[in-house]
Amino acid sequence: MNVEVVAVGTELLLGQIVNSNASTIGAALAEKGLDANFQQVVGDNHERLTSTIELAISRSDAVIITGGIGPTQDDITREAVCAATGRDLVFSDSYAEHLRRWWEDRGRVMPESNLRQAYHPEGADLLMNPKGTAPGLALEHDGTLIFVVPGVPAEMEYLLHNDLLPRLGEAAGVDEVLVSRVLRTWGRSESDVAEVLDDLYRSSTNPSLAFLASGGEIKLRITAKADDEATAVELIGPMEAEVRARMGSAVFGADDDIIEKVILELLDGLGYTIATAESMTGGLVAAALTSLPGSSSVVRGGLVAYDSELKQKLLGVEDVSAVVTAATAEAMAEGGRKLLDADVVVSVTGSAGPEPLEKPPGTMVIAVATPERVLSKELRMVGDRERVRTYAVTNALQFARLALQGTWWKP
Amino acid sequence: MNVEVVAVGTELLLGQIVNSNASTIGAALAEKGLDANFQQVVGDNHERLTSTIELAISRSDAVIITGGIGPTQDDITREAVCAATGRDLVFSDSYAEHLRRWWEDRGRVMPESNLRQAYHPEGADLLMNPKGTAPGLALEHDGTLIFVVPGVPAEMEYLLHNDLLPRLGEAAGVDEVLVSRVLRTWGRSESDVAEVLDDLYRSSTNPSLAFLASGGEIKLRITAKADDEATAVELIGPMEAEVRARMGSAVFGADDDIIEKVILELLDGLGYTIATAESMTGGLVAAALTSLPGSSSVVRGGLVAYDSELKQKLLGVEDVSAVVTAATAEAMAEGGRKLLDADVVVSVTGSAGPEPLEKPPGTMVIAVATPERVLSKELRMVGDRERVRTYAVTNALQFARLALQGTWWKP
Repeated sequence: MNVEVVAVGTELLLGQIVNSNASTIGAALAEKGLDANFQQVVGDNHERLTSTIELAISRSDAVIITGGIGPTQDDITREAVCAATGRDLVFSDSYAEHLRRWWEDRGRVMPESNLRQAYHPEGADLLMNPKGTAPGLALEHDGTLIFVVPGVPAEMEYLLHNDLLPRLGEAAGVDEVLVSRVLRTWGRSESDVAEVLDDLYRSSTNPSLAFLASGGEIKLRITAKADDEATAVELIGPMEAEVRARMGSAVFGADDDIIEKVILELLDGLGYTIATAESMTGGLVAAALTSLPGSSSVVRGGLVAYDSELKQKLLGVEDVSAVVTAATAEAMAEGGRKLLDADVVVSVTGSAGPEPLEKPPGTMVIAVATPERVLSKELRMVGDRERVRTYAVTNALQFARLALQGTWWKP
Repeated sequence: MNVEVVAVGTELLLGQIVNSNASTIGAALAEKGLDANFQQVVGDNHERLTSTIELAISRSDAVIITGGIGPTQDDITREAVCAATGRDLVFSDSYAEHLRRWWEDRGRVMPESNLRQAYHPEGADLLMNPKGTAPGLALEHDGTLIFVVPGVPAEMEYLLHNDLLPRLGEAAGVDEVLVSRVLRTWGRSESDVAEVLDDLYRSSTNPSLAFLASGGEIKLRITAKADDEATAVELIGPMEAEVRARMGSAVFGADDDIIEKVILELLDGLGYTIATAESMTGGLVAAALTSLPGSSSVVRGGLVAYDSELKQKLLGVEDVSAVVTAATAEAMAEGGRKLLDADVVVSVTGSAGPEPLEKPPGTMVIAVATPERVLSKELRMVGDRERVRTYAVTNALQFARLALQGTWWKP
């Protein structure tokens, strides 16, 4: 089954935003084993949009149209789909009612223009979109499935996973099962991992092994194909055990185990609470620790001591003449334990750049204080401010994990 | 003149890379006053690539093809251009010689496969590419200009600016310049903005007015075409003044003025320092305020009082039996001013969800304390935890901006 993506929006043609929706959809289709031969982008112009949709319908088994279904005058995808499929635009009283309630629930009066979103091509299914006011649309024309989803990535992704992919899979009659297990690792370089796993990587076909470096971690994906899920899972088992044995404490989780989740589980198991004492990361480590539901049972909070005076006054750092040092990072972590009444405190101090602060931009010291000990590590990352801060957060979380596991810096 | 971009590469269809070339080219064309009606993406397949190029030639004045001109077997753009234009593929002895020297200069022997890059459609100009081994190509067919450039962004960009844009500009006889001004607004819904600006939107052609909702704000883009930049800027003036008058304090900046930057500038102007007292946002507001270089001169830091005990102990909130209240938010902001020695403190308390905390998930109270007063506002956002927290951060920053401007909650 060939699926074509048509992205609608003059802002895409003008290069004001990148067409990330097309790649998100492309990756999801590939994972599901569906083919994609073409993508198109067209502006908010009725005639051109209509002919683009007609072309897609004529050559593809399914078409996913993103964007152009907001409440404003330049949102014309609904009308173009009608023109391309010879349908009337009809009004849904029940969706209009849903829209009114949506605004009411937020204590606001619905602007009349919002009612545009209750119009749809006759015969289309309205796909409920809990993340916004524009419904997704699904219809069939000349044997081609047509989907329309909002251009806002979060809304598009919700409908993609909850409606489009299941409907496409069913239509394609995909019955081979593909099961993947992702082992998430941190602390070893890509080339190091490639070397350690080289023979497995070369010799394996089912299950296969793939690497993906992203966001400071390396994901190892083991994928098996089989007639049913149980058999695929069985195929994965021995390979997973071997990879875990070789990678040691670098493996911090599997599949959806993001580092934040792993830390919350470790804390929970130990009966510890955690807090942060941050300077260069400005609150990002605390934000990460509180990003998951249930974090309030183990996260106390954090102090962002951006100004050195606050490091002194609130964390009891005695000497602030040099702050990008192990002594300061450790004093911040220990001071944080007292100030915030937490069992464990992770601290970060450093120079985010672009201006140097004592040491070259990108230099940082991370410390973790537990009831037993305090440990620290100096690191450096080259890059802009955002990259440096993101690297600092990832490392702070991973060092906290290693400290809680008792395997500090021994991958 | 209409310019169409055709991006070639199966990796684009599979979502392994994002089509950033299309937006780079789109932005450059717009800046030059050239129109773009369509973009296409197609994989490394001879038949489909040929028909895609034929379609582009048939409807556009110029076509820019990116990718598929490397040295490997799946690089087939040269052959497809020949098929679409009825030309022969010919070999350039002088380019082959250039390639041999390129490798020699690097002390390496040229792989024979590299000679593929000396082939080109008969009659095409070879555009020298100092950043790689594949030359750009330029030819004309049936009155349509056709350009082929490498998919590697740095190589594409070099040829775009040095060869393509000058040739396109000359062909279009463009001395016409396009200038855009983006007004960034916050606090009004998309449909409300559409209503308020409806007549301007409908009646305006030069300058034109467009809306773009993204990341909690609505951008209003005013674009003017003229013979020179000064005239275009002059055309924008009255429309900008009218839009600003109608939108009032909802306009917080123009062009690259992100809210963080606006706040730092306001603080600088007032000689104030700022800090945060956060609960549900867990440090994200402090992280935003410290995201830009130079923030250390006005940002003191922040307290993440995730646990109610810390609100009491460190911020002096007396009654923590109910924390999603105006009283708590205001006490946090005022307590934060003392604890963190800051002139201005923005506080956030609420229930990020998914579990309700006193009030339904997504309920939040934001307060801002300045030396003159403390103000607060209760809000609610429906959605998952991440969406709720992101909304809270945007609102906290915008309320801080309104408080500093003295236009709190009066759009």
